[in-house]
Order: sequence, then C-alpha cells, then structure tokens
Amino acid sequence: MTTTTPQPIVTPPGLAGVVVADTAVGDVRGDDGFFHYRQYDALDLARHVTFEEVWHLMVRGTLPDAAQARAWAAEVAAAAEPAEDVRRELTEVLRRVGGGADPLMSLRTALSAYGALTGLRPLWDLDPEQRTADAVRVAAIVPWLVTAAHRLAQGAQPLAPRPELGVVGSYLWLLSGEEPREAHVRAISRYLCLTVDHGFNASTFTARVIASTGADLAACVVGGIGALSGPLHGGAPSRALDALDAIGTVDNAYPWALEQLRSGERVMGFGHAIYRGPDPRSELLRETVIELGGPTAELAVAAEAEVVRALAEHKPERVLRANVEYYAGVVMQSCGIPRSMFTPTFAVSRVVGWTAHVLEQAQQRKIIRPSSRYVGPPAPQPLP
Amino acid sequence: MTTTTPQPIVTPPGLAGVVVADTAVGDVRGDDGFFHYRQYDALDLARHVTFEEVWHLMVRGTLPDAAQARAWAAEVAAAAEPAEDVRRELTEVLRRVGGGADPLMSLRTALSAYGALTGLRPLWDLDPEQRTADAVRVAAIVPWLVTAAHRLAQGAQPLAPRPELGVVGSYLWLLSGEEPREAHVRAISRYLCLTVDHGFNASTFTARVIASTGADLAACVVGGIGALSGPLHGGAPSRALDALDAIGTVDNAYPWALEQLRSGERVMGFGHAIYRGPDPRSELLRETVIELGGPTAELAVAAEAEVVRALAEHKPERVLRANVEYYAGVVMQSCGIPRSMFTPTFAVSRVVGWTAHVLEQAQQRKIIRPSSRYVGPPAPQPLP
Repeated sequence: MTTTTPQPIVTPPGLAGVVVADTAVGDVRGDDGFFHYRQYDALDLARHVTFEEVWHLMVRGTLPDAAQARAWAAEVAAAAEPAEDVRRELTEVLRRVGGGADPLMSLRTALSAYGALTGLRPLWDLDPEQRTADAVRVAAIVPWLVTAAHRLAQGAQPLAPRPELGVVGSYLWLLSGEEPREAHVRAISRYLCLTVDHGFNASTFTARVIASTGADLAACVVGGIGALSGPLHGGAPSRALDALDAIGTVDNAYPWALEQLRSGERVMGFGHAIYRGPDPRSELLRETVIELGGPTAELAVAAEAEVVRALAEHKPERVLRANVEYYAGVVMQSCGIPRSMFTPTFAVSRVVGWTAHVLEQAQQRKIIRPSSRYVGPPAPQPLP
Repeated sequence: MTTTTPQPIVTPPGLAGVVVADTAVGDVRGDDGFFHYRQYDALDLARHVTFEEVWHLMVRGTLPDAAQARAWAAEVAAAAEPAEDVRRELTEVLRRVGGGADPLMSLRTALSAYGALTGLRPLWDLDPEQRTADAVRVAAIVPWLVTAAHRLAQGAQPLAPRPELGVVGSYLWLLSGEEPREAHVRAISRYLCLTVDHGFNASTFTARVIASTGADLAACVVGGIGALSGPLHGGAPSRALDALDAIGTVDNAYPWALEQLRSGERVMGFGHAIYRGPDPRSELLRETVIELGGPTAELAVAAEAEVVRALAEHKPERVLRANVEYYAGVVMQSCGIPRSMFTPTFAVSRVVGWTAHVLEQAQQRKIIRPSSRYVGPPAPQPLP
C-alpha cells in the first residue's frame, strides 16, 4: 500500500482567523461588538447574575436554579481553602518563592504544587464527573493562592475564606483583611463576570492544547497562567493605569495622547484586535466606574474622551476606543486592589473560563499536534 | 469606513496537517522516515556528535568548532547547579511537594520556582542574547531538578553535578550517585540526542504559544512539561516496557499480541502517527540495545519481531513497527534508569528543543490567537 500525505493547510501568522476547534463555551463576535458565554450575552450576565452563577453556567453548562445554586455555593466554598496539611505545605512553598517573585510566578508555582499535593490525576484517566470536580477545585483555590502569596510577600499571614460573603466578597476579604464594601463587591463581581472567557486567546488555547494530551487539570491551568503572564496578553491592566498616572489631569490628556502618537508609542488601554467599535466590556465597566465615583474615576472618564479625540484625529482610518484593560484598571484601583494584584485578579475569573474549555477539550480525546513548514537550509547536509 | 471579517480558515481536529508556523529548527518527514535538526540528519548527529554539540546546534544555530565547544561546555556547566541560596529554596520546595507527587509534577513546580527565584524576565523585555542566556539556564537546570526530586523522594540528598563527565555522564551520576559506565553514557547520549526535537508536537507547540505572549522562559517550559505529562504525549516509554513485562518470554510475544488485538487493545510501543514505515529513532535505538546486550535487550529485539508479525497478520492494511517509546524504555532500563524516571529523562533532552523553539517564536513578536467556531444554542437568549 502506498499513501501520500495530503496537501498541508497553511495558516497566517499567529493563527489569526483560523478556526482551530468547535466550542459551545461561548463566542466573540467582534464585528457586532458582542460576546457571550454559552447562549447568554456576557453583559446581561454581568449585570444580573452572580459570579458563582456564571461559574456554574461555564462549568456545568446551565444557569443554576435555586437548589442548584445552594449546592454549588457549598461545593465552591468547600474547595476555597486547602486542607490543613496542604495549606501548611503551600504556605511554605509560597514563602520560599515569595521573596522578589512576581505574583503570577507565585501563582503558577503554588497551583502546580497544589496539583502535586492533592494528587490530581490525568484527565485521560477520569470520568466526566471526576474531571468536573477537579475543574471546580483548581479554579476555587486560585483566590486563596493569589491572596496568600500577596500577603506573605508583605509579611502578613494568609487569611481564611469567608464563604458567607460569596466568592467575590471573600476574595476582597482575603486580599485586605477588611470587611468588603457592597459597592466594591458589585463592581468587582461585574469585572470578574466580564472577564471569565473571551474566545481562543493565547492562555485559553494553551490550556486546551495541554488538555488535549490528557494531562491533569493543574498542568492545563499552570500553562494558561504562563501565557497570561506574557506582556502581550495579561500584562496590560496596570500599564493602562500607569498611562493615566502619566496623564495626571484632564487638561493634559489630549496633548499627552498626541505626544505618544508622534513618538510612535502605542497608547496603552486603547484599541482591540477583535472589536472594531467599542469593546463591550469597557462599556459596562465605564458605567461601573461612574457609579463608584472618586477622583480616579472622574479623571478616567474625562481622559478617555480626550484620548479618543486625539486618536480619531491622528488615525482617522481606525476606530480606537478604550478597551477592557483601561477601565479594568480603574475599577480595581477604585475598589482598593493594589496594582500588583490586577493580573492575579484577572486570573481569578479567567481560570473559570480555562477550566470550562479544558473540560470541553477533554471530551474529544484527540491530541492537538499541528505541522510546521521548514524554511532552513536544505536537509540533510553532511556533518562538517 | 466599514470592514468585513475575512472568511475563516477551518481546520481538521487536532490541527493535523495544519502548518501553524515557519521554522528553521528542524523537520519531520514522515513519508521519508527521516527527521532533522537544523540541516542535519538527527541520526547522523546521534551517532557522531555529543549531546552538548546538538544542544549548541539547536540553541545557537550551528555545530560548535573546538573553541566554541569549550566555551559552551563551560556555559552549560555553570548553569547545571543552582546557586547555593536558590538550591536551598528549591530543595525545600521539592521536599514539600515530593511526598506522593509524581516526577513531572515536581519538575513543573520546581522549574516554575526556579524562574521565580532567579528573577527570569519576560522574553518581550529581553534582547536576543539575554533570551538565549535564559534558554541555556532553564534547560541546563533540568537534570539537577529531576534528579534532586527523585533522590529526595527516596530519602537521599541531591548530589552536585560533575561537569568533567559531560552533561550525560553527569546526569547518570546525579541520578544514581555511582560512577557512570561508558557504554551507558554512549547509549543515553544517543537516546537524548534522538529526542531533542520532533516537529510541532503538543509540548513544543504549547511552549511556542506561551512564548508568543512574551512571557518568561520558565513559563514556556513549565507549559511544555505540563503537555509532556499527558498520557497521550510523554507517558508511553514506561508503558511499552510494562507490555514487555507482560510478554515475559519470546514464546509468549506472538500470542500476547494476538490477544491484545482481539480484545481491541492498542499495542503500546508500536505504530506512529507520522511515520508510515519504521520510526528512524527506534532503528538506531535497536542497534544501541543490541550493543548494550543483557536479558531485557534480547527479549525486546526478539519480541519486536513476533509482535510485528502478529500486527502484520491482523492489520495487513497498516504497517505497524516499533516506535521510539518501545526501544527508549529498553535503553533506559538497560542503563539502570528507574521506570519512574523515563519521562523526566525525556524532559532532559526535549527541553533543549522547546527552548530552541521558544527563541525562534520570540523573534516574531506576534501573539498566537486562533479562532473557534461556536456550535452551541443560538445566542443571545434572554436570561431565564
């Protein structure tokens, strides 16, 4: 029998516009300025349901009814803190890597250790219910891990979760040790709901590629965290706020933006690869910022208008609007989240999306193994 | 201005046959039963040059001359052991996750911690020489990490590398604490040279996707380790040997294979997705096994012939031969490497390939962000 390899499909750099999988987790319709989780508009969800309910939707596939919501809250709460022996080891691991380490490196290390310490098994060896249970555990532990790392780096002790505050309230408690304000819980809940999932971005795709090998759930999420830590992916929320610091006052926003554009710098927090019009996430976060009020909020809204004006004059062929990073940073700052915790807070929500994608990928039991095109010198050459 | 999104490119499951990037690192020509690193036949390299020289070829792009080889050996040796303060922390981290953890989970955790403790910076912030220096450091530390984890799990102390033995000899020393035999060094060197790289497999692709975000080198390699830990990817070497245990004697090989086929089981260690004829790696490793001799080697060679005969009779439409996993396991067992260290040993070589790919990907400064096709219920639906 002779066989011939079929003609390969050649794709554009970065796989832009290349459909690599079917998914029922959600979609981003950039041209429509719209994205959804399962069949629901993500903005509807962020406005009207809790972060726990969105999490249930992503991982279990439906919005929970009242009884399901109670059971789910209990399941999530039970997984929000490591068992005592695991907590002792994780605290020590975090302490060891904490000095000078950045928060995502600490999270990556601690979550990897959590998988080892709790004996997570390969997805390939688990049935669907066991896989889902691991997905819940791995996502539920992230708030404790990132806040424990933060507190240890500051010489404070990790705190215990407060399930009665809900996941979002408990997160703010774990971070600060202060009773969270209701307005902050509502604002951060919106932010977290809005950032659970957003297409096949690099971290989600990484988690799916790892899942396709049948590896354990922590392996998938640790890979996702690595991708999220890249400056081209998750690094922007605090940089957008750095830009706002540089602007300083509303009067300075227009000249600042012009100066950036003249010197060829990218204006951080503006423009998006997929949304041609407004980023729907920044629309709702702007509303949230206005509700929160305060000096940063006022400066941000006014400066946005000035920067958009400068961008429209300088690049009339492109519609550049504030993206999610711009208002994400403002919301988090207004709620007292320190800048070093912006990307870790993003991880608290995105891990829910990663785990939903990992569960979907695991059903396919097919390894992702693409091809490449060799462009080096002709081979084989004799050894020199 | 109105724009329309171009028609998406839809790809087959697992991205099989889809060219996702141009590369000069190497290629696999499955139809020819041939693979190469840069422009050199991998089998030529495995026969005639050292593991260090292959490493230089992959990361620096050329085979070293004598002066380069000396400088390279010194660079690699300097990075083979952590500095004392880092070693103390890593040992403690490994000790903490060691109880019951599997070796790849320990490696994943420790390498992540190594990145944190040595302050690795995002690839995006580094110039090419700095990136290469990080690539060398991250790959060079893997032998120490995997052997330290192994020894700690057994209640022994990690050892110090022995640069005068070369990377391969030093690895065998670190593992066992015994003076390595020359025949073992030669055999393991061949195995490591043969498994440095092999196309855009799932772990290599994972490392490249993470690199495309500009993340640090440890993030890329930690993701690769996660993918390698999947049973569909790196998990097979010891399972092929388990099959050989089950066969037990040559007389039993043919009936054993028939029984496997009748019960619908896959015969571990036989067949490959890309090679239609013999796997070139298993050809050279068979030679190596015969040179090593011993009872496992003799059983393996004789059993291979019997299993191939059974496969040919049962599946005449497919040519199923022993793949790399089959003889990899036999070579490692014959050289005294414990079965739990088979996949970690694979990581010692494959990390060289990953880092070469990461360096190539980092030059492109373009994030990998594919698309997906939404196949769930029509969206948006009103909230219930």
